[in-house]
Amino acid sequence: MVNVMKKVSLIWAHPRNDSLTSKISSAVQEVLLEHEYAVNELDLYRLNFNPVLHEIDEPDWNNIDKVYSDDVTKYAENLQRSEALFIVFPIWWYSMPAILKGYIDRVWNYGITYGESRHLPCKTIRWIALAGEPQESFEKRGLDKSMIHNLNVGIAGFCGAPDSKVTILYDTLGEATDNIVDHHNDLIKITKDMALEWINSHSSQA
Amino acid sequence: MVNVMKKVSLIWAHPRNDSLTSKISSAVQEVLLEHEYAVNELDLYRLNFNPVLHEIDEPDWNNIDKVYSDDVTKYAENLQRSEALFIVFPIWWYSMPAILKGYIDRVWNYGITYGESRHLPCKTIRWIALAGEPQESFEKRGLDKSMIHNLNVGIAGFCGAPDSKVTILYDTLGEATDNIVDHHNDLIKITKDMALEWINSHSSQA
Repeated sequence: MVNVMKKVSLIWAHPRNDSLTSKISSAVQEVLLEHEYAVNELDLYRLNFNPVLHEIDEPDWNNIDKVYSDDVTKYAENLQRSEALFIVFPIWWYSMPAILKGYIDRVWNYGITYGESRHLPCKTIRWIALAGEPQESFEKRGLDKSMIHNLNVGIAGFCGAPDSKVTILYDTLGEATDNIVDHHNDLIKITKDMALEWINSHSSQA
Repeated sequence: MVNVMKKVSLIWAHPRNDSLTSKISSAVQEVLLEHEYAVNELDLYRLNFNPVLHEIDEPDWNNIDKVYSDDVTKYAENLQRSEALFIVFPIWWYSMPAILKGYIDRVWNYGITYGESRHLPCKTIRWIALAGEPQESFEKRGLDKSMIHNLNVGIAGFCGAPDSKVTILYDTLGEATDNIVDHHNDLIKITKDMALEWINSHSSQA
């Protein structure tokens, strides 16, 4: 019997390695490892990822096989054979930080993750987005909806990943809670449950 | 009589200086100069702007007077006394390129453009966003609405700039047009008219 570990990519972005975003990423990783997935971690900050797309990485709409920069080629190969993508980030300006946006701008490129019949290596994305502010003020202005629409329809939908779900972890600054330590532990629990839910649905399909 | 020229900031982002985005930026500049505005141009690519926010530029929610990196301090000072901001960019993934997102992440920071009674130096932003695809397919999926909501409510609204308007210039790849040269000239005309409209409304208020 050959035991081939299933690969999941965990892509995350935060300037500090001691941040709550980092802890949430670790929680995802822990659950996946416990269930014998191989976790391909892309810690964009520690990898010193350059998010600025230059001419060499502009799509050529007449050539779906354009060869991009070595950097993009390497990151594109890195994604291959992932059975799911977990993407963790703090919400800045009601969307993702520039380093993560640039990862998508550059690596999720024409001929790599979309174009003709090309698509991401998997149909599943779980976006885990940390919001400093409480749920009420965020939702009151409809900024959850516009972000979720961009992620699910604008990005995942375009790359052939219809099973895209966004989990927003609210109030990371603890404004609306008495005990911030308990609250952060609750957010870690929500994250682990979400990862476990995917693992269970995924193994039942196998 | 002292003739003080009014300052407008023109912020734009595209890897190529011969792009349509560049031409649209030049069209804005031309109209402003004709009407005796001083144009403060921020060509983020040629300035080699670094969009990656590191710890030194993280907001300190307990210190609205935090001193940020020299780079951010310089770009924050650069914005001062602008009477309007014109921001020009190609739409990538139904939002702005990473280099522009990171300009906002880093420079439009707590204590600089928001926090307590602080705000942008002006109430007006004109976002000019170039879409490769035709209007119909873009709007069909509601991706115009989610982007506009993020820009007007999520960003401009948060920084005290209620007069924020988004102009989307569609079909820059010319898929839905017979003559791409004429179509691009039409887009330049739309841009100039929009700039002129602001100038007229602005001078009538003076």
